[in-house]
Amino acid sequence: MFQAKARADTLKEVVNVVSTLVDEVKFSVTSEGLVLRAVDPAHIAMVDMSISKDAFEEFKADETEIGIDIDKLSQFLKLARGDDVIDLKHDEDKRRLNIVVGDITRRMSLIDTTGMSDPKVPNLELPAKLTVNVDDLVQGIKASETVSDHIALIATPESFEMTCEGDMDQVNWRKAKKDMESLETPSSVRSLFPLEYFSNMLKAVPSGSAVTMHLGNDYPVRVEFKIANGKGEVRYLLAPRIESGD
Amino acid sequence: MFQAKARADTLKEVVNVVSTLVDEVKFSVTSEGLVLRAVDPAHIAMVDMSISKDAFEEFKADETEIGIDIDKLSQFLKLARGDDVIDLKHDEDKRRLNIVVGDITRRMSLIDTTGMSDPKVPNLELPAKLTVNVDDLVQGIKASETVSDHIALIATPESFEMTCEGDMDQVNWRKAKKDMESLETPSSVRSLFPLEYFSNMLKAVPSGSAVTMHLGNDYPVRVEFKIANGKGEVRYLLAPRIESGD
Amino acid sequence: MFQAKARADTLKEVVNVVSTLVDEVKFSVTSEGLVLRAVDPAHIAMVDMSISKDAFEEFKADETEIGIDIDKLSQFLKLARGDDVIDLKHDEDKRRLNIVVGDITRRMSLIDTTGMSDPKVPNLELPAKLTVNVDDLVQGIKASETVSDHIALIATPESFEMTCEGDMDQVNWRKAKKDMESLETPSSVRSLFPLEYFSNMLKAVPSGSAVTMHLGNDYPVRVEFKIANGKGEVRYLLAPRIESGD
Repeated sequence: MFQAKARADTLKEVVNVVSTLVDEVKFSVTSEGLVLRAVDPAHIAMVDMSISKDAFEEFKADETEIGIDIDKLSQFLKLARGDDVIDLKHDEDKRRLNIVVGDITRRMSLIDTTGMSDPKVPNLELPAKLTVNVDDLVQGIKASETVSDHIALIATPESFEMTCEGDMDQVNWRKAKKDMESLETPSSVRSLFPLEYFSNMLKAVPSGSAVTMHLGNDYPVRVEFKIANGKGEVRYLLAPRIESGD
Repeated sequence: MFQAKARADTLKEVVNVVSTLVDEVKFSVTSEGLVLRAVDPAHIAMVDMSISKDAFEEFKADETEIGIDIDKLSQFLKLARGDDVIDLKHDEDKRRLNIVVGDITRRMSLIDTTGMSDPKVPNLELPAKLTVNVDDLVQGIKASETVSDHIALIATPESFEMTCEGDMDQVNWRKAKKDMESLETPSSVRSLFPLEYFSNMLKAVPSGSAVTMHLGNDYPVRVEFKIANGKGEVRYLLAPRIESGD
Repeated sequence: MFQAKARADTLKEVVNVVSTLVDEVKFSVTSEGLVLRAVDPAHIAMVDMSISKDAFEEFKADETEIGIDIDKLSQFLKLARGDDVIDLKHDEDKRRLNIVVGDITRRMSLIDTTGMSDPKVPNLELPAKLTVNVDDLVQGIKASETVSDHIALIATPESFEMTCEGDMDQVNWRKAKKDMESLETPSSVRSLFPLEYFSNMLKAVPSGSAVTMHLGNDYPVRVEFKIANGKGEVRYLLAPRIESGD
């Protein structure tokens, strides 16, 4: 059983987190909220999101699984204003999610979740940890996109840097420790990532909010942030591209 | 003879009514105003529009016919602000319409109207009649467009509904009689229509205004509304798609 | 040596002047400012621009030449707000221009200028001279673009006109002398120009400003205007298309 009401902008934040990574998702529902874990088809990125029942205006659920075509849900939410309240109801007999906004009801066929795996979140020791405003990062990423497909993230005890090296040009974004919310690392670490994936992850972060990153040396990056006014937590994991050094 | 001045937004409303249906139109001009009747190339929809001379800032005309390429007129009007006054003058010798806005004059070749037929508006008995705000309808249509190419319009003594059935999903929009301007029907009626045509018709209705529909059982729908601050009347007729029942 | 700071909107104006004409440019730098002269690949249009050092917040330079890929510079400037101050520094050893805005540094490879010619600005006697507001002209050009690829510029002692003749339609824009800032011509002159080039030139003029044109009979037009709050001067020269007269 799953029956809930949520503001449209809350649901839009949830959809943004997964839509650039996967088309079809399985939400694991409990009486406490929703959990979603998914890996992109290329196995480069993973998302691990949990939304507390407190993120909803109303929430009543038993343990169940709901398989959703994210694109359809996204289309429907575009019709709603941010402060519209959306009504969600799982019709178990007809295997549908019924979504109501104002005068409109969409009865949406659910996806069969039996074949969908439960990715395990790897346990990684990432020595560097830093917190920075997402809007600052986004500016640096936009500048990088014209230069190369990869971006290096570099944490030193003094600063956090993003560097992008093209054949001709180079873009560097740098923030000193004193201008960041926090930065802790025992030594300098550096990993290289596919820029498009990293860029898409940061696009899902609500503007103005803080994003925390955990970094190592040629290791994945873990990107953490809150959505739904702090009632939802997102952890992305992105695999590094090992630099050949030639 | 035809010589008139009109606000750009009035002319834009006139152009919107016909531009999604036909490319070339014949305006029948009299001393009282303009009348336009046209059928789309697929013979699925008809428009019957009359614009009173009171919709114009100035209007002087004898009986004549003017054949216009709607796309050209639309392009030109895009250059004008809504409150610009447009000057229209039929140059009968050169078979042109001269249009002036500000410093700009466009001398537009007219289309030969001799081959253009005068469609007859059929006399239909449509038992259901209802009036509703166009903005509400447009929300329901947008939700439907992601689901199917057809939309069913259903009037019952209690409510007006639009329903769209896709292979997987269903969209339903419903308004109770008490939330509508008016709704009268002796019995429940239902007809199915091509969604794109119906959607285009409603796009021509000025935002915020009331639209009246006349409906039957597997019968055409007649959509009526006012433009030009009430000085112009539009009647669309849209053919039903007969449901095969399988 | 070249080292300067400038507001982003000043640099954007400079980029707009050349970007529609050429991809790669050579700036000739002196202690007094920058000069740029370039001809488009089809040899139809020429630009001659000089930017005083007073257009910059800071400016320190010896005589040098800097070859820039205009598209790259334009991309980078899109990241900046109009009032951001951009830091420019020529790294002569690495043949780069280092550009800094906020936290972001782009190190941009320069283009080799040894092969780039210095076009000579021809000395033309153009009898007609007129000054008009650019926004008025732009409206006339937009109306013309739907009708033909060429535009005739016509100055008479009484008025300035732009005329565009299509196969079917004609667009005419006309300004009487009394409605213009100035108009002086000993006789009527008329020349025909490629509309796209002329349109692109006027797009580079800051909105609201005055543009001065010098015209002859089947002769090039010289278009002059100021950028960078009057601290930069632009002169475009556009070759006429000789009318065949058939």
